[in-house]
Amino acid sequence: MRQTKIVLSDKEIPTKWYNIMADMPNKPKPPLHPGTKQPVGPDDLKPIFPMDLILQEVSTERWVPIPEEVLDIYTLWRPSPLFRAHMLEKALGTPAKIYYKYEGVSPAGSHKPNTAIPQAYYNKKAGMKRIATETGAGQWGSSMALAGTYFGLDVTVYMVKVSFGQKPYRRLMMETWGATVHASPSKLTNAGRKILELDPDNSGSLGIAISEAVEDAATHNDTNYALGSVLNHVCLHQTVIGLEAKKQLEIAGDYPDVVIACCGGGSNFAGLAFPFLHDKINGKQLRAIAVEPASCPTLTKGEFTYDFGDVAGMTPLINMYTLGHDFMPSGIHAGGLRYHGDSALVSQLYHDKIIEARAYPQLPVFQAAMQFAKTEGIIPAPESSHAIKCAIDEAMKAKEEGKQRTILFNLSGHGHFDMQAYGDFLAGKLIDHEHPESDIKKSLDRLHAMLK
Amino acid sequence: MRQTKIVLSDKEIPTKWYNIMADMPNKPKPPLHPGTKQPVGPDDLKPIFPMDLILQEVSTERWVPIPEEVLDIYTLWRPSPLFRAHMLEKALGTPAKIYYKYEGVSPAGSHKPNTAIPQAYYNKKAGMKRIATETGAGQWGSSMALAGTYFGLDVTVYMVKVSFGQKPYRRLMMETWGATVHASPSKLTNAGRKILELDPDNSGSLGIAISEAVEDAATHNDTNYALGSVLNHVCLHQTVIGLEAKKQLEIAGDYPDVVIACCGGGSNFAGLAFPFLHDKINGKQLRAIAVEPASCPTLTKGEFTYDFGDVAGMTPLINMYTLGHDFMPSGIHAGGLRYHGDSALVSQLYHDKIIEARAYPQLPVFQAAMQFAKTEGIIPAPESSHAIKCAIDEAMKAKEEGKQRTILFNLSGHGHFDMQAYGDFLAGKLIDHEHPESDIKKSLDRLHAMLK
Repeated sequence: MRQTKIVLSDKEIPTKWYNIMADMPNKPKPPLHPGTKQPVGPDDLKPIFPMDLILQEVSTERWVPIPEEVLDIYTLWRPSPLFRAHMLEKALGTPAKIYYKYEGVSPAGSHKPNTAIPQAYYNKKAGMKRIATETGAGQWGSSMALAGTYFGLDVTVYMVKVSFGQKPYRRLMMETWGATVHASPSKLTNAGRKILELDPDNSGSLGIAISEAVEDAATHNDTNYALGSVLNHVCLHQTVIGLEAKKQLEIAGDYPDVVIACCGGGSNFAGLAFPFLHDKINGKQLRAIAVEPASCPTLTKGEFTYDFGDVAGMTPLINMYTLGHDFMPSGIHAGGLRYHGDSALVSQLYHDKIIEARAYPQLPVFQAAMQFAKTEGIIPAPESSHAIKCAIDEAMKAKEEGKQRTILFNLSGHGHFDMQAYGDFLAGKLIDHEHPESDIKKSLDRLHAMLK
Repeated sequence: MRQTKIVLSDKEIPTKWYNIMADMPNKPKPPLHPGTKQPVGPDDLKPIFPMDLILQEVSTERWVPIPEEVLDIYTLWRPSPLFRAHMLEKALGTPAKIYYKYEGVSPAGSHKPNTAIPQAYYNKKAGMKRIATETGAGQWGSSMALAGTYFGLDVTVYMVKVSFGQKPYRRLMMETWGATVHASPSKLTNAGRKILELDPDNSGSLGIAISEAVEDAATHNDTNYALGSVLNHVCLHQTVIGLEAKKQLEIAGDYPDVVIACCGGGSNFAGLAFPFLHDKINGKQLRAIAVEPASCPTLTKGEFTYDFGDVAGMTPLINMYTLGHDFMPSGIHAGGLRYHGDSALVSQLYHDKIIEARAYPQLPVFQAAMQFAKTEGIIPAPESSHAIKCAIDEAMKAKEEGKQRTILFNLSGHGHFDMQAYGDFLAGKLIDHEHPESDIKKSLDRLHAMLK
């Protein structure tokens, strides 16, 4: 049977992003200033973000036009293909139809450039010369480096020191695109120097790297900061994924019963799910599942409350599901899902029971990844494999119930830079990390004590 | 300006491969048996190849139908996109139009699955249970592992020992797809054992790995051998690349003045160029350039004569351009281009002056790769970067001459598994390898002495 790959023409790239704020029954509560605990205004964000992005962050317009200059670059890999997973379905013996949207076709190998490109564009337009940002394993940093290359912006990436040493290939990718990469903590910022004074061998964390990048941006007039997930404007930019998928399923004459995506900071899930949630909020029957790792179960075991976006407590307070900003998730391979909090939009939707959430340990996730690679051929990123695991579970449930079901999931990236994780799995070295619930309770108790 | 990406629909995948044998003014001389020095017949090849492939190897039919089962799998990533390199053109300030066909979209990341898929299909159809093959850095081995997965064939890969140790990620890719990978020389074959007895620390070579894979296939009834380049049927399968590119350029309202591809064993060059050479042989104005590394200058400095395909002298003798089968090319990063000989078809076309050839040292090749990555975004494989360098040179020549020119090159793969090479370049560690002409003369002298 000829495999089903639904490809749209360049002319069918969405020309507007979808803003779910326009349709949410309850809007998220405003972010609060970390010092005053008052709602933050545009002026608070101006030192690090361009005004176009600040306005998108608070916009309640349903449709936000995508600038021509951004569409120009999107066209290099968008519209991304939508596949019907015939071979996986056959292996599972399921009556369910499984579709996946594949975002690994971008030059950086994931969905991240969908927001890196507009962020670079708006910053260039605002006269910025440089972007400072942070990265863990390098997925976001490499996407920002790529975007900088297209728009002639210098990019400085603070890369968590342990990844800088252990994962040189994404660092080299960033450098190939011309970015400057510093191991964080570095001696270039007050935040970094302070930590190195106390602990010269500190191996870094995403929280420290954020602090360094924000300080770099705030202290240089020609430099802004960029964040790869969590924020409203980031979720907005990612909606091209779901908008395209809707058109593609329409061509296939189908509509999903369930939409599935992995969820770290939330923008990948938002990207696929929000355009479908528009229909759900307007009465359509649909389930949407955000999938997270059991080692960082933000939605499934966290609390819906105000918390900081970073470990150091320097960012605005966001009303979201959180495990506490100093919660330390285990060192799983899906580095992109190790975040203590979640997008305010995704959190509000979960709180309002418009979406569901599910958490999986990493061993069954890698078993699902292997099954996918051996049937469909693409080697998936560990993050994306959480969505695969959930899609397989839904398909098997349909089989047990003897029911037809249409499943759509987002394959957010390939695993070409994660082969060590596959090696660990094949060698039987991969373990499941369990967190005693008391760990989560402790970090939430510390949060409440701090916020009093 | 909106970037130009020309995508064909699934229905526009070619349904026939193009066989240049039908149009060549001079057919290649037949391969000779290594023992008898007589032309090899189908019976000589039956122990290691299925009859369908043996017949394709000698076919002179212009069009060979692609089986439905092969088209099924091709559809997962084919038709591959054709891009106009607007941003590279702008950076060069050239009046030339540069197009590139991108084969890195296959799950294995290169053009190699175009032939791995049909080879697996014909072997499955012939009742084979297993394929034995060799691989250097792993590009061919991973493509065969992928193909085995799709058709339910076991795949055994003899991987050159030094790569097995130093390049674990492509090995893990093969194992993820279920292949069994042995470091070669291994203790599993007479060829391997013999070498290990004499030299227990032997670090392997492609020649030794070929000997092991051929022996494995020849001594097991349920097992055949598969080769990733050089042979006529391999070149045939790759012509889907050029056939698609012709359709895509037609949509763009264009036709190339010059067609460029890198050339190791020759199948990548054949894949892009042969369908255009059909037009040239029939009177169309067109140049075709095969690009090779200066460290292994088979066409540009080799001799047109009978030689063995492998180092050990076990394969049939092929009439081709060769540097002598025991010529040892320098350890450049473009491992896929380190082959002493060349396809008989490509060699004959070069001998008949229907195609041109050019050789570049690796330093300017990596400079071209960097320029491409920083303008077009895709990080190219070192092999493909030879074609980029040549395309840039042709575009700059057009600029000097103030002439319009349409250039088409094949971007045969991405560089995600070659980041160490980029790291070496960025660190200033990459060097150009020069071969004294006397090295080539010596290995050719040894060949002639042996053939007497």
